[in-house]
Amino acid sequence: MSTEATIIAMAKAAKAAAKKMAACPTAKKNAVLLQIAQGLEQSAKFIQSENLKDVENAKAKGLSAAMVDRLKVTDSTIRSMITGLTEVAQLHDPVGAVTSTWMRPNGLQVARMRIPLGVIGIIYESRPNVTIDAAALCLKAGNATILRGGSEAIHSNQALAAIVAGALTNAGLPTEAVQVIPITDRNAVTVLLKQDECIDLIIPRGGESLIRFVVENSKIPVLKHYKGVCHVYVDASADLAMAEEICFNAKVQRPGVCNAMETLLVHRSMAAAFLPRMAARLGAAGVRFRGCPESCRLIPKAEPATEADWPEEYLDLILAVKVVDNMDAAMEHIAAYGSDHTETIVTADYERARSFVRQVNSSVVLVNASTRFNDGGQLGLGAEIGISTTKLHAFGPMGVDELTTTKFVVYGDGQVRQ
Amino acid sequence: MSTEATIIAMAKAAKAAAKKMAACPTAKKNAVLLQIAQGLEQSAKFIQSENLKDVENAKAKGLSAAMVDRLKVTDSTIRSMITGLTEVAQLHDPVGAVTSTWMRPNGLQVARMRIPLGVIGIIYESRPNVTIDAAALCLKAGNATILRGGSEAIHSNQALAAIVAGALTNAGLPTEAVQVIPITDRNAVTVLLKQDECIDLIIPRGGESLIRFVVENSKIPVLKHYKGVCHVYVDASADLAMAEEICFNAKVQRPGVCNAMETLLVHRSMAAAFLPRMAARLGAAGVRFRGCPESCRLIPKAEPATEADWPEEYLDLILAVKVVDNMDAAMEHIAAYGSDHTETIVTADYERARSFVRQVNSSVVLVNASTRFNDGGQLGLGAEIGISTTKLHAFGPMGVDELTTTKFVVYGDGQVRQ
Repeated sequence: MSTEATIIAMAKAAKAAAKKMAACPTAKKNAVLLQIAQGLEQSAKFIQSENLKDVENAKAKGLSAAMVDRLKVTDSTIRSMITGLTEVAQLHDPVGAVTSTWMRPNGLQVARMRIPLGVIGIIYESRPNVTIDAAALCLKAGNATILRGGSEAIHSNQALAAIVAGALTNAGLPTEAVQVIPITDRNAVTVLLKQDECIDLIIPRGGESLIRFVVENSKIPVLKHYKGVCHVYVDASADLAMAEEICFNAKVQRPGVCNAMETLLVHRSMAAAFLPRMAARLGAAGVRFRGCPESCRLIPKAEPATEADWPEEYLDLILAVKVVDNMDAAMEHIAAYGSDHTETIVTADYERARSFVRQVNSSVVLVNASTRFNDGGQLGLGAEIGISTTKLHAFGPMGVDELTTTKFVVYGDGQVRQ
Repeated sequence: MSTEATIIAMAKAAKAAAKKMAACPTAKKNAVLLQIAQGLEQSAKFIQSENLKDVENAKAKGLSAAMVDRLKVTDSTIRSMITGLTEVAQLHDPVGAVTSTWMRPNGLQVARMRIPLGVIGIIYESRPNVTIDAAALCLKAGNATILRGGSEAIHSNQALAAIVAGALTNAGLPTEAVQVIPITDRNAVTVLLKQDECIDLIIPRGGESLIRFVVENSKIPVLKHYKGVCHVYVDASADLAMAEEICFNAKVQRPGVCNAMETLLVHRSMAAAFLPRMAARLGAAGVRFRGCPESCRLIPKAEPATEADWPEEYLDLILAVKVVDNMDAAMEHIAAYGSDHTETIVTADYERARSFVRQVNSSVVLVNASTRFNDGGQLGLGAEIGISTTKLHAFGPMGVDELTTTKFVVYGDGQVRQ
């Protein structure tokens, strides 16, 4: 079969499977999740031997050490997939949940009830654990999924797919509820993105070029996650000890992720008291600085920031620093250079906290807490499938609820329209 | 300026205006809405004289009487726009509403707060009242809008736009919060659909070819409304008098709209008792029938249905009729031929009511009520901007809430991530 025919057949099969999954009882979905976990445990050696093929191919192709590292399925990767599956099994089932209900004057009772989205396509890069993590969350929400991992992880992903298929079969569910595309041909993605009759949503997970490719080529709605240029604004009234802990955590705890702080904005009145101390502590942790002129006076080792620094997502131990005249100037900077991802204000002032929260429209806006809390698990959604910077459908971390939509249900006793 | 330059400038101006509208207090938005209403009243003669130009051009071009009729701005059209504006002013303001809030074990309080979507592009056909109705709802939800009406309504739409601009200016709000594209060049739409950096959502309102054109050409998320092939299933246990009232209302009250019944499914055990009586009453109202073989035996004047009848949206006094063996067969028919729009079951059976509601995943699913209730006003959402058959973001009637998204707001007292 040609690539095109294969993908079209997979999309049609997924649509048929999605109808069955939508009606699948919670207990059965949870049983499948736990059986996949068991399968991973039992087949750990098989998965790792298949993974070794990918790792050796990657080395032979001269991929970077970092990429080879991300590709590896270690004992700890397997344990973490198993833990993830167990946690998703314990999550509430969103399907059938009524999010609100009300009466109409004519006696009709109207309710909004969660239903699965249908078929979700996920396109991702090298980490093979995404295959399990993403499939589990989609399955819990009653969806069918089509997964397309990186070509360098093909053996690992097919091994994981076989375990999922076994668990679905044992439960009497269609194996087409979770399909991993077996073709490395890049054209498979292009064809997949055209199947808008069968696929309801595409989620790309990976670098900006992958996401842009998907957005440019998709006829299907895409939930995308572009970069996170996250800000912390230290207000005039901030508790400086608190501000220091928050900034240190936001920058240093895990600098390579999207919810790490990239730019620090400091109120002019606090700059002299705060910046030298903060910079010393961050500097000791290896952070380098790109500052506005005033910041450069206060931070001895800072290099002058250029216009290119303000919208930059460093994902590294580099921090842009700017002294601002007031909160409005901070918010203007965020509006001009931010990515609508995550912003924190550190303040002791009631009115400014309220104002920042109302006026900053990023996906997560925090008062007196680290930007690193923009995460589905940390915010209490359970596992997450990603962080959307698209405003449509879901904005911010996406959990199981965000993998559903709502229908209206209307209970009457013979009402007709006047 | 070229068409392209004009549209790009409008999109950028809309994005800037959207930031101001997002922070606009409720009272000010309501005042603008009421001032537009006042403007319509005061300028009714001007609007109608501009509209006359469009009507005469349309006649000169030989447009159909129905199209010319839809184009006309009568006294009653103006009254209805004024009523609409008053109603939208009275609606709740969705912006800033907290839809849920919860505590985390570490003391963080997490909330989801509604914010505007940003910039909404609306592409519609001849009825000029859409200009006011759509702009009002978007404005209430704190969005900026770019409206593109049909070229045949250009004078009417520009006259209405001038009144809106006047009201915005008087309130000290940017006139770019509501812009009506002044160019009839079709290329304007194509360019508009590429402005994904500035526009957050596109809503096409019109026929299927318009919607398909928009979907094919848009880089921006589209909320689309395809056809409504709505079903009523009369179950074995149905109260036949109730079923008759519901079917009559669903088919005859307004046959040309998307929530009218197109196919009637009847349980075999009720067919002989129900169909002849129902068909006589519908027939007297001018309805013609396309039946399965069994229906044709019971309805003397029915023509045999072909495979093409089942997925057909007649929008006319024509009804497809099929006798089914049981509810499962009815649901299979709906899944195979329906459009996920609106389906009703008429039943007295608790378990089947429950089962139909759970298993049928159309945008509105009703028990013992007419399909005609799939409407934002009827379901209690206030005014509606359309009925989405897209599952992403909004499924079914869309009111002001559906013109917003939610951000996460997190209140802490110094929390950092472990």
